[in-house]
Amino acid sequence: MFLAKVYVTLKPLVNDPQGIAILGGLHNMGYKSVEGVRAGKYLELHINETDKAKAEKVVTEMAQKLLANVVIEDFRFELDPIQ
Amino acid sequence: MFLAKVYVTLKPLVNDPQGIAILGGLHNMGYKSVEGVRAGKYLELHINETDKAKAEKVVTEMAQKLLANVVIEDFRFELDPIQ
Repeated sequence: MFLAKVYVTLKPLVNDPQGIAILGGLHNMGYKSVEGVRAGKYLELHINETDKAKAEKVVTEMAQKLLANVVIEDFRFELDPIQ
Repeated sequence: MFLAKVYVTLKPLVNDPQGIAILGGLHNMGYKSVEGVRAGKYLELHINETDKAKAEKVVTEMAQKLLANVVIEDFRFELDPIQ
């Protein structure tokens, strides 16, 4: 059993209106030292596989097909064994 | 200058319809080894502070006030120095 922690982020050149809105809100609240915000997704998946290589393959496939939109998003993940 | 990586997750007992929808989609696609999905947010903020303790204080405040809804969400963050 593995816990997959998947991070999905917009590619650097893709416009990020959510991040811009958060930045505007923080500036309005007086946090002037924030100079940029990028918003992404964080997913935790429980994977019932015993073999780490197999779990990696499954998570990569799922990220490419569903979790991330690979045209505009990048993803990376970590696999932690759990009991 | 610091890069703050902020992870916002629903508290364990809070219902997560987005995670349930993703799980259903993955099962429909044939990924039967996935047993649970929790969806959260991942934010990257550029913080223009020279002092790490000050940057930590600012990020904690921003997370409590805007980035996370502390009634139903937990947050954690890392600070990496950048040039």
